[in-house]
Amino acid sequence: MPFGSKDKAYNSSRSLAHLTAEQALADYAVLLTDLKRNLSAQASPVVLFGGSYGGMLAAWMRLKYPHISVGALASSAPILQFEDIVPRAIFYDLVSNDFKRESLGCFQTIRDSWKELDEQGNAQDGLLKLSKTFHLCQTLKSSEALSDWLSSAYSYLAMVDYPMSSDFLMPLPASPIKEVCRNIDKQPEGTSTLERIYAGVNVYYNYTGTVDCFDLDDDPHGMGGWDWQACTEMVMPMTSSEDLSMFPRYEFDYGLYADNCVKSFGVRPRPRWITTEFGGHNISSVLEKFGSNIIFFNGLLDPWSGGGVLKNISSSVVAIVAPLGAHHIDLRPATKEDPDWLVSLRESELEIISVWLSDHYGAGGVLFQNAAANDQAAS
Amino acid sequence: MPFGSKDKAYNSSRSLAHLTAEQALADYAVLLTDLKRNLSAQASPVVLFGGSYGGMLAAWMRLKYPHISVGALASSAPILQFEDIVPRAIFYDLVSNDFKRESLGCFQTIRDSWKELDEQGNAQDGLLKLSKTFHLCQTLKSSEALSDWLSSAYSYLAMVDYPMSSDFLMPLPASPIKEVCRNIDKQPEGTSTLERIYAGVNVYYNYTGTVDCFDLDDDPHGMGGWDWQACTEMVMPMTSSEDLSMFPRYEFDYGLYADNCVKSFGVRPRPRWITTEFGGHNISSVLEKFGSNIIFFNGLLDPWSGGGVLKNISSSVVAIVAPLGAHHIDLRPATKEDPDWLVSLRESELEIISVWLSDHYGAGGVLFQNAAANDQAAS
Repeated sequence: MPFGSKDKAYNSSRSLAHLTAEQALADYAVLLTDLKRNLSAQASPVVLFGGSYGGMLAAWMRLKYPHISVGALASSAPILQFEDIVPRAIFYDLVSNDFKRESLGCFQTIRDSWKELDEQGNAQDGLLKLSKTFHLCQTLKSSEALSDWLSSAYSYLAMVDYPMSSDFLMPLPASPIKEVCRNIDKQPEGTSTLERIYAGVNVYYNYTGTVDCFDLDDDPHGMGGWDWQACTEMVMPMTSSEDLSMFPRYEFDYGLYADNCVKSFGVRPRPRWITTEFGGHNISSVLEKFGSNIIFFNGLLDPWSGGGVLKNISSSVVAIVAPLGAHHIDLRPATKEDPDWLVSLRESELEIISVWLSDHYGAGGVLFQNAAANDQAAS
Repeated sequence: MPFGSKDKAYNSSRSLAHLTAEQALADYAVLLTDLKRNLSAQASPVVLFGGSYGGMLAAWMRLKYPHISVGALASSAPILQFEDIVPRAIFYDLVSNDFKRESLGCFQTIRDSWKELDEQGNAQDGLLKLSKTFHLCQTLKSSEALSDWLSSAYSYLAMVDYPMSSDFLMPLPASPIKEVCRNIDKQPEGTSTLERIYAGVNVYYNYTGTVDCFDLDDDPHGMGGWDWQACTEMVMPMTSSEDLSMFPRYEFDYGLYADNCVKSFGVRPRPRWITTEFGGHNISSVLEKFGSNIIFFNGLLDPWSGGGVLKNISSSVVAIVAPLGAHHIDLRPATKEDPDWLVSLRESELEIISVWLSDHYGAGGVLFQNAAANDQAAS
């Protein structure tokens, strides 16, 4: 572990300064080159696989280090979620759609809940009452922390709305949004909105039923590193719109965002860096002209699909879209519960990748089949 | 000036750490993007021009930032002078050829001089005598420093062997090697080898005739920054061969090289970094597949042409080779002395670049000619 330990490394902006997409790509370039040399495997083709941020890295690595790999599967890679390339509201709109799709009542309950939450937060003893309703370990200091905690749950639920049980961000049942909404909707008449909301998010934060109380300061998803990256180069402007969203109205304010980064990490973001480094507004023409052998996978349930590449760009930079898929579901381990569409899209991905490999071997590598054929021809 | 001042910046490995090819490319990406935004010139195409190290940067920028420019003129860019891509002896062999081409006697005198220099250096009062012969300001502490000073002069002379007078590294007459060799050859019979050598290099180090004495510790070419880069990522293994070279026999020893870097700068080089970052052994296939719109210019008198791209790689990654050209002569200011071949090769470069520009305008930019034609058609 460089920099002593993970805790140490994450505690100093001096070491965090190395936590960048460019450094990650350079690290992979060195690692892959050295691995191949050390294993006497220089001629072996490398295929890159990555999901989410890792998917962005995979796609970007094809652009920046085309000599290191023969292709990349960039799964749920929101490489367009920067500056003004896609509408700012798209992420929260997609999350909201996922809930609306399961139950209009559930969507409406969540939508109504923020006002009640604020009102209760401002009332006498309201924060104490809220803390009890939501089984928090500490009494709330503001209702905002609770709003954030709930909003996070909904966003993460949309990302992991897989049709099979999973344990990616949290242990969860199959189709967790359906489950959350069932819990919100099924409460007996007279149950308050906020009690319904609690019953819903309890599925996300406590599916195993082992949590006694919730600590809002907890970082169950280990996002500390991402927070740093979001405060340096991965600035993704996101707004919550009035019309389509179930979230509290929220307008991205770059000034406030930057000030918070200075407060948290002592750094000011470079909001235009990613498009400068990798292209952005013209990414399809860049990918068309200078890219090859990239699969962009996106599931449309995944709110990150809003910033993804959803259309074929060229004959070898292609999009695979799963209408019922969530965040990088193609890269999840195969299970017996996998629906047919998932099985067959994985097969399509494999087929495309095998073309890359035969192209590579055809273009100068050693193709064992051919070698055998030649032996036969010579004998 | 960042880091306080140039002196300060060059004095600390903390600030020198930013002196890398990758940082330079990123700086240009930000500068060009910001310039275009600030000048409301986002749609204007950018063409990159660079010579020598700048030529490498221009070529590499087309690979790493294809969205920032429409093409690059990479003049005398030895992007292959790394690891074992080209023969290690090629640089000094090419320098030697340039001298042999002017005068076999001159070549032979230089070739013979090293032994005499060593012998005199080892003799009683030899260093004092050498210091006098070569008009040095201080008495030599070893003959090696003098050998290095002479070798540098020959290498630089080969780089700037322009057919017109110039003032690039030093003020020099047209065809300076011819001049140096004339001085070496024309001395009256009985002139010692080392006196001849002095008469020769005096043309390089003192063409203006204003230098009273030579200070070997002087850095007349401002190479301090390059020395740092050579000790970090720009490791170019160079050997001086027995057979074709007029230089003292010298075998590149990476261990010694690295130790000297630790002594000078406290850093250990990364000798394989450049090929990892930009490709190298497979550079033509990388350039063919992922590059476009690059002109590689090389003059064959230039010893750096040994590490240059001398053959067309694709229809838009092309090589222009000038048999009588020295280091990035195409980018030197036009003069009345310019030979016809130089005038016409500059025209070829312009023609190629104008194709890039019309391609760019045709592909979505505004072509003023077309706009005018449309106006006419509409009227």
